[in-house]
Amino acid sequence: MYYNKLRKIETNGHVEALVTPTTTIKRHPERAAYDRDTIDAILDEGLFGHAGIVSDGQPFVIPMLYARAGDVLYLHGSPASRLLSAFADGARVSFTVTLLDGLVLARSAFRHSLNYRSVVAIGATRAIHERAEKLAALRAIVDHVVPGRSGEVRGPSDAELLVTGVVALDLERASAKIRTGPPADKPGDYGIETWAGVLPLELRPGDPVPDGSCSLPPADSVLTYRRGRE
Amino acid sequence: MYYNKLRKIETNGHVEALVTPTTTIKRHPERAAYDRDTIDAILDEGLFGHAGIVSDGQPFVIPMLYARAGDVLYLHGSPASRLLSAFADGARVSFTVTLLDGLVLARSAFRHSLNYRSVVAIGATRAIHERAEKLAALRAIVDHVVPGRSGEVRGPSDAELLVTGVVALDLERASAKIRTGPPADKPGDYGIETWAGVLPLELRPGDPVPDGSCSLPPADSVLTYRRGRE
Repeated sequence: MYYNKLRKIETNGHVEALVTPTTTIKRHPERAAYDRDTIDAILDEGLFGHAGIVSDGQPFVIPMLYARAGDVLYLHGSPASRLLSAFADGARVSFTVTLLDGLVLARSAFRHSLNYRSVVAIGATRAIHERAEKLAALRAIVDHVVPGRSGEVRGPSDAELLVTGVVALDLERASAKIRTGPPADKPGDYGIETWAGVLPLELRPGDPVPDGSCSLPPADSVLTYRRGRE
Repeated sequence: MYYNKLRKIETNGHVEALVTPTTTIKRHPERAAYDRDTIDAILDEGLFGHAGIVSDGQPFVIPMLYARAGDVLYLHGSPASRLLSAFADGARVSFTVTLLDGLVLARSAFRHSLNYRSVVAIGATRAIHERAEKLAALRAIVDHVVPGRSGEVRGPSDAELLVTGVVALDLERASAKIRTGPPADKPGDYGIETWAGVLPLELRPGDPVPDGSCSLPPADSVLTYRRGRE
């Protein structure tokens, strides 16, 4: 579950994509056709990502909410934070979203793995100062987590906008990597007497828990979100 | 869901810990007592993490398996890979593990969040060349995902050891951040007529899927893993 190298490929879309072939993908070249549709589907299914920044030569990897809007990822935070300071216009960042699909249990320790889908986007951030784009980005982040939620709640006040930094990362250099399917054991290992296969994993919602001041039934957005995942 | 600043604290253990206070934690200072037990529990529950490296000033964030063994995190990969090359002895890295616990749905867009537990470890890696430590690290990584699994499968051959790079990252500088509980709405927002609360999320295992060559019942390690998560 690591990246060997980056390889540039042609895509039909208007942005380039970088794929990251691994031994798994070499054995299953049909999986290597990662275009923007594949990348977008992973980004849209993920709930949060991990942002990487560099500060005095030291990388920091931080979990963050995000949303994709067309060819752009929006990230937000406090302008006073270490992260948003590093995200000042033009900072080089990496933003990675990983969806875990299952445990791959082989007959040898060496061939154990995870089934997963991930996207790595790299590039330079662009600070969003324009009010309309900032509002749209924040709306997109709320609706990315639970579609339709932004229409059920109070939008940002001027004071809240002031203390929220928003940056954009163009999806010009994004790569996908996917591992699916059963373990790939060495031919000589199939005689080993142990169970081998995949244990699927899924992120499942539980029952909504209203806060102490709420006596309303769950909002439409929450009910729709749960129905889509049951 | 971002880090504001790092603050050094005293711990009872023999390594220091850095905590990352946020507005949430300031409002709930009882959550800020992150010691090594808290950090270790998050690391031991996580299945994979995100490693951050720097290459020519550009950060890269990559999903990776890992294991904790005492005060050390072990990571592995192909020595030929971009990642392990960057992980050459002494590389500065960040390794972050995040557990997602739920969606926090407030009455204002601004107060939306996620409930989560995360650990950020930073420092310099140390390449593991000694055979016994390398074998122990690889065993720990397999058993970290599914406890007991390494005893059910073939261990690494000399050829497999040769093409597996292992690095250690000491947990000397590790920080935890946790958000739990209901949304924290502004006092004036409680009159807004919308459902507010938490939608819990949980990573659940499905039914084991044997590979095409396997007619054995699921291994003890798999059954135990599932039982612990049902």
